[in-house]
Amino acid sequence: MTSDQKAPVCVLGAGLIGGSLLRAAADAGYRAWGYNRSEAGVTAAVADGFDVSADLPATLTRAAEADALIVIAVPMPAVDHLLGAITTFAPDCALTDVVSVKGPVADAVRAHGLSRRYVGGHPMAGTSESGWAATNSDLFESAVWAVGVDPGTHALTWTRVTRLALDCGAVVVPVTSEDHDRAVARISHLPHVLAEALAVAGASGGPLALGLAAGSFRDGTRVAATAPDLVRAICEPNRDALLSVLDDTLTVLGAARDSLRAEGSLADLIAAGHDGRTAYEDNERWEITDIRPGDHDWLERMREAGRRGGVYTARA
Amino acid sequence: MTSDQKAPVCVLGAGLIGGSLLRAAADAGYRAWGYNRSEAGVTAAVADGFDVSADLPATLTRAAEADALIVIAVPMPAVDHLLGAITTFAPDCALTDVVSVKGPVADAVRAHGLSRRYVGGHPMAGTSESGWAATNSDLFESAVWAVGVDPGTHALTWTRVTRLALDCGAVVVPVTSEDHDRAVARISHLPHVLAEALAVAGASGGPLALGLAAGSFRDGTRVAATAPDLVRAICEPNRDALLSVLDDTLTVLGAARDSLRAEGSLADLIAAGHDGRTAYEDNERWEITDIRPGDHDWLERMREAGRRGGVYTARA
Repeated sequence: MTSDQKAPVCVLGAGLIGGSLLRAAADAGYRAWGYNRSEAGVTAAVADGFDVSADLPATLTRAAEADALIVIAVPMPAVDHLLGAITTFAPDCALTDVVSVKGPVADAVRAHGLSRRYVGGHPMAGTSESGWAATNSDLFESAVWAVGVDPGTHALTWTRVTRLALDCGAVVVPVTSEDHDRAVARISHLPHVLAEALAVAGASGGPLALGLAAGSFRDGTRVAATAPDLVRAICEPNRDALLSVLDDTLTVLGAARDSLRAEGSLADLIAAGHDGRTAYEDNERWEITDIRPGDHDWLERMREAGRRGGVYTARA
Repeated sequence: MTSDQKAPVCVLGAGLIGGSLLRAAADAGYRAWGYNRSEAGVTAAVADGFDVSADLPATLTRAAEADALIVIAVPMPAVDHLLGAITTFAPDCALTDVVSVKGPVADAVRAHGLSRRYVGGHPMAGTSESGWAATNSDLFESAVWAVGVDPGTHALTWTRVTRLALDCGAVVVPVTSEDHDRAVARISHLPHVLAEALAVAGASGGPLALGLAAGSFRDGTRVAATAPDLVRAICEPNRDALLSVLDDTLTVLGAARDSLRAEGSLADLIAAGHDGRTAYEDNERWEITDIRPGDHDWLERMREAGRRGGVYTARA
């Protein structure tokens, strides 16, 4: 395994996440190259000294020859096209991704017959900017990087993906696709939906309301500045989990509305919200030190540790 | 009027806003003193060299003797008690406030017979912290400070309140109580409500979800860290306006939920939200230069200018 640990990395998609990964991996001593669909992105990356091409077959052929770890770093709607090309040009490479949902990617990987060497990933990092111009080698520093522990996960591939995440400065949360998608519906996709709704409400107040807006509106709508197509590509593939938490939230908000109307009180909502924010601020990561990839029941144990807030930080 | 411009300021309440106002006014060369209910707050302010007392009658008697501008800087539930004392000890002083709603304060002022020299105010600044320890003389720097232009507003008092706001580093938005309360429901109170609901949704996901949370959740729930009693005191007095925008927002979110369920699409919400955030980012203040307080129709003209995004910056 040791020889594998800094084996080459081939990143498909040089946007905010993929491009930042190219930068971070190169900084960490990996041989790293990539593909980008748009020539503009390729030109920008090459101008910054990165080895990025718009030739997908050539990029993947090179990955197959070098036994690189392939990282899919495009929005969900573009994943299927890349998987088709991987099936043709690099079907035996280890494979991961940084897409914002995990179940739909795992399904697509399975449909292409590529599950054997696939381990899903998702670095919890980003800004409202996008494209190569927004890339930053420090993007993953101290971030959390979800790495899949679905049944059947191959320990060596898991370790290789984990090592890359750690070398980019992140800590790893082991999580199944289903748990991941439910969690990010709560802490990533719902924030997008509420930010959009808040921006709508503010703008409906015209220049007066927008001119009076201060920190709470600015922060509450920050992610509504993200490109609409990207927000759709992030949220819509997680439909079922997002619908569930959105239903719950409409119930919570409806109850608050009813209480405000009937009794003039928002006490219950505000108490619960304050408790929730406090739980977030007090939430402490702890290190998983007693589970080694490949050991008996390691996937189940990793999953349970991740659910209890554990993070994996061992490079071995 | 000139002699009035830096006439003394008496601030009732030395929390985040009132305490910061004491600091900013002192820095700007005003003679400023204040009252605080809790001895702990008084002790902290005095330790920092400020002239703050827990003796309300004495503080107000001094204001009456010095013809100070009295600033009410307590949450809405505590306003009535202060107005009662002002009626007794300093009924002829010019009076303003920095409370988060304007209609209910104006009603209370009227009920105490103090409308003649009252002009409402609201600096759009704050943090999720509270109390003297959080005070900061720069809190109002480049902030917007709403100053009331309800019918019957006295031009000299208006100018005096405006001058104080400008000297604290803010720009002034002229606005009626009704317009103000509708606008802040959108850009201040709704953000609080949505932040609380988001915090509830995140915490319901347990340590896994909270551990995966990144920037969008952190920023989206920031104001849920505010003390619950203070959030209630900010939002609940604005019940009617908040109910209206909360109803609208539930409709918007419900439509998005239905579209996601039926068609897998959040396109309409995300497009509208992005437009709203863009309108916020592109919103430009312009200076009101052609209206002088006291001129014919000045209140109506100020109100219209404020609605169109105008700010008043003239100290004269």
